[in-house]
Amino acid sequence: MHFRVALAQINVTVGDLAGNAEKIRQALDQAQAAEADLVAFPEMALSGYPPEDLLLKPQFIADCWAWLERLLPTVRSTVAVIGFPHRQDDLYNAAAIIAEGRLVDIYHKQYLPTYGVFDEDRYFQIGRTTPVYVIRGVPVGVSICEDIWHPGPPLADQARSGALVAININGSPYHAGKRQFREQMVGTRASDYGLYICYVNLVGGQDELVFDGGSFVVDPRGQVIARARQFAEDLLIVDLDLEVAISQRLHDPRLRRERLVGGPAVTHVLSTEPPPSRPRLAPPLAEPAPPGSPAEIYQALVLGTGDYTRKNGFREVIVGLSGGIDSSLTATIAVDALGPAAVVGLTMPSRFTRPEGLEDVRALASNLGIRLLEISIEPAFQTYLELLAPYFAGTPFGVAEENIQARIRGNLLMAFSNKFGYLVLSTGNKSELATGYCTLYGDMVGGFAVLKDVVKTMVYRLARYRNERDGRPVIPERVLQREPSAELRPGQRDVDTLPPYDLLDPILKLYVEEDRSYEAIVEMGFPPAVVQRVIEMVDRSEYKRRQAPPGIKITPRAFGRDRRLPITNRYRPFPLVEG
Amino acid sequence: MHFRVALAQINVTVGDLAGNAEKIRQALDQAQAAEADLVAFPEMALSGYPPEDLLLKPQFIADCWAWLERLLPTVRSTVAVIGFPHRQDDLYNAAAIIAEGRLVDIYHKQYLPTYGVFDEDRYFQIGRTTPVYVIRGVPVGVSICEDIWHPGPPLADQARSGALVAININGSPYHAGKRQFREQMVGTRASDYGLYICYVNLVGGQDELVFDGGSFVVDPRGQVIARARQFAEDLLIVDLDLEVAISQRLHDPRLRRERLVGGPAVTHVLSTEPPPSRPRLAPPLAEPAPPGSPAEIYQALVLGTGDYTRKNGFREVIVGLSGGIDSSLTATIAVDALGPAAVVGLTMPSRFTRPEGLEDVRALASNLGIRLLEISIEPAFQTYLELLAPYFAGTPFGVAEENIQARIRGNLLMAFSNKFGYLVLSTGNKSELATGYCTLYGDMVGGFAVLKDVVKTMVYRLARYRNERDGRPVIPERVLQREPSAELRPGQRDVDTLPPYDLLDPILKLYVEEDRSYEAIVEMGFPPAVVQRVIEMVDRSEYKRRQAPPGIKITPRAFGRDRRLPITNRYRPFPLVEG
Repeated sequence: MHFRVALAQINVTVGDLAGNAEKIRQALDQAQAAEADLVAFPEMALSGYPPEDLLLKPQFIADCWAWLERLLPTVRSTVAVIGFPHRQDDLYNAAAIIAEGRLVDIYHKQYLPTYGVFDEDRYFQIGRTTPVYVIRGVPVGVSICEDIWHPGPPLADQARSGALVAININGSPYHAGKRQFREQMVGTRASDYGLYICYVNLVGGQDELVFDGGSFVVDPRGQVIARARQFAEDLLIVDLDLEVAISQRLHDPRLRRERLVGGPAVTHVLSTEPPPSRPRLAPPLAEPAPPGSPAEIYQALVLGTGDYTRKNGFREVIVGLSGGIDSSLTATIAVDALGPAAVVGLTMPSRFTRPEGLEDVRALASNLGIRLLEISIEPAFQTYLELLAPYFAGTPFGVAEENIQARIRGNLLMAFSNKFGYLVLSTGNKSELATGYCTLYGDMVGGFAVLKDVVKTMVYRLARYRNERDGRPVIPERVLQREPSAELRPGQRDVDTLPPYDLLDPILKLYVEEDRSYEAIVEMGFPPAVVQRVIEMVDRSEYKRRQAPPGIKITPRAFGRDRRLPITNRYRPFPLVEG
Repeated sequence: MHFRVALAQINVTVGDLAGNAEKIRQALDQAQAAEADLVAFPEMALSGYPPEDLLLKPQFIADCWAWLERLLPTVRSTVAVIGFPHRQDDLYNAAAIIAEGRLVDIYHKQYLPTYGVFDEDRYFQIGRTTPVYVIRGVPVGVSICEDIWHPGPPLADQARSGALVAININGSPYHAGKRQFREQMVGTRASDYGLYICYVNLVGGQDELVFDGGSFVVDPRGQVIARARQFAEDLLIVDLDLEVAISQRLHDPRLRRERLVGGPAVTHVLSTEPPPSRPRLAPPLAEPAPPGSPAEIYQALVLGTGDYTRKNGFREVIVGLSGGIDSSLTATIAVDALGPAAVVGLTMPSRFTRPEGLEDVRALASNLGIRLLEISIEPAFQTYLELLAPYFAGTPFGVAEENIQARIRGNLLMAFSNKFGYLVLSTGNKSELATGYCTLYGDMVGGFAVLKDVVKTMVYRLARYRNERDGRPVIPERVLQREPSAELRPGQRDVDTLPPYDLLDPILKLYVEEDRSYEAIVEMGFPPAVVQRVIEMVDRSEYKRRQAPPGIKITPRAFGRDRRLPITNRYRPFPLVEG
């Protein structure tokens, strides 16, 4: 006997209740046509996730409920598990269990993440009931995302009450390599408790987050037996052989010991008629990119960029092209996300632009097949210098004059945005944003910052990956070879201001992503003076980051809601000097 | 017998552990010189509040502990209660109880606010022990901020265990009228439990928050008997007549009933020798501005602006002066915060500037005694139009051309900032930011947005208040009379784009601050078409606000961490249309 589960990995949009309900309905129909005994949708599939302070609007909660009620009659031959925000006595992160057009039960999430990018304690009450649903005679547990990351209840109690299948619905955002970690952890839980775990995840971009899909099923021995695509919508249909779970329960000594402890779940009997006998489907097992590889990260950037653009109603994007690696990669990602017709390049040379840079921009635009506009900023730069001459007379050419150029470019990009409705993609990377090596209102201008969480050394790896992928280089090789420069003064090089990137990036990872102390980083062998300078640059540029556009999180800790530091902050994390 | 309490309302800086410890030491010395039996410091006085993700740095927690240990020997003749972050098994929002140079106990906050601007569940574990300290024979309870906002424990248990005095240490941010609400609520608690409550608050600006001080003491009947200054540092020393509390406990029937229920606190005996007999001090009772009045709000803006500037190490600020009411008020607040020598005005007329505007700017600068710089943006505007002509030919003058002007001004302001180290104060108000009636990277440019949470009608009230305050108008009367305009195209008026402000501002309050639904607002009698348009403008401009500079919160819900809405958000809060 096998139990057929469908995992509907859909790409919903926050707040688009009508659109999301329609997506759910379509997947429901497909699952019913495929004779699924159960179909599960991701966490908050109806509202989109995370809805943030929309949850504080009573009307929003009421509207979600109204749309859920409209979905009920579309559930006929299957049982549906649909994530939505539920107001009862208080507000809950919930899953509706629907059978035969009727709302059978509502499960409330028990563990509310309030760390990293998550603020669930801001919104939700904790659920206190652990259910098991008997569906076609099969005991099935339901839980939501974080619930499964903790050993013990609710999963343990569901298993002890006989559950052979656990449905876990998720809104789990991507960072490099997280898919592998999820599969490993969920595999452990499955073997701990001797049941199938069906993990369904959202897919798609939402502001700074990319949900990467990669829904999967693990068997009671902890092996992944089916996997949906990563970074794309999918409907994963899997036949679960329940004999495997029953036999595992009887023979695994770990599980026999487990039986002796723990509390029961609340059991709801939905149907006892066993599943019909059907030919067994071959489980699809998508082969995703290696965990944390440039191929994986590149897909996340493409999906995040495409979804931000589309979901915010833009049809075209514009990218300022300097001939450098960051803007070249940004334009390439944009083309992969939206197609060449939707991408406009604007190059804005100055007196400091190297002639070969302009050549490379033209080659890139031609390789990508995008429109390229050219405007020299020289006349505008000259005008600013003249306007300011009465006040700046006698001062040396410095950061003020450098930034004027970057801000002229920002103004021109925004003029195209305002005139033609283009979304401006900004091109800065994480190494620059971390150290403040970027111009507020200049190169930081944009609605979306594609490489915001990508350090410079990874920018190079991504560019190389993309050039090699199709056996046809898109980014001119010279762009990858040329020494990085902001080109805002004669002979400027990044290394005049920053440590070399292969030294800088590892320090940034330790300090920004891992909160390692100055002393710990120095103990690892990094030069103390460099470490101190990097930390000072990072701490001093918080004000710039606060005004940066959103961009795609690809690391365990991105700038944005993931890392909330005060701007006014006199803490200097160096050893206390006795005074 | 009276018990002498000192409340040290100090202005600390987040992360400035050495500076904060020195402030604490100085207040300690003063309190000891005044023979205080106890001195209380605000919540997180040692680290500054809120330290946000600094709390995730183990080194920061260790450094706070090191500085706390250095303070121990300076506590001699008094008992000190000092707020700090404490790592034990987990991390706690804590108060150190120090006596005779020794750390006697550490209290852990029991209620962790995770709403509005607060994220305490992100950082802290909940405290589970309720202490009472016997100091000079007097039972004293200690609690932290949110602890006292909930009826019941810890305050109730402290009272039931005999506490006659409750110390409540706070980092309570200002919004208009909050002081009065605090005094009323704390007064109720004092009379509920029949004890003195000594409420000590932080004072000073921290990014978007202003802590307004206004520390106070209520007697067991709920009356405020002493109050420190609002918006300034203070050391409030109060003699508490314990006979009043004891007599209240014996005679109030409500309290006699209370005795019958509830659990005990943990009692620590510090000293049993009663306080010495001393002449009783007259309790200071500062007379603050009326709750929510322009006078109160104005002080908050002055303190917030001054502290952001000083604590971030700026000595001078620059304000773009248009001759309009927003920039005039911003410059006036800056002068009141920092003095005229620290404020530079920059006026940047264009072809659309009314000649009388320039006159008013000069009059304002002269009234304020600030330097005024003038640069016409015409040559730059002309240059941009020429550069863009090949691409914009045949399109009408529109938002693109309007915004170019605002962004030229932004570029010029930033050039002065970069050249001379000025902090740019942006001048936009909450009505503009709410509706998106402002230019990203243009008039939104700046390190700090003084009026970010002030709606336009309040801008007028503040300007009138300030003009009347000293009997000498600073802002030219014509500025208050002239019809608001962005002056970016011929004959432009705000009412061409926005509803009149006296209609707009109440709708914004209902929608933004109170999350009222479209239908509820319409039911109040506002025109449906206007309500819909306002809501659409607010929802559509979230992306602009995400890149806005920080500014001072003066309402119950400011833009910023107080209101966390997704940018990608298709929710339209209008009645569902059956489709």
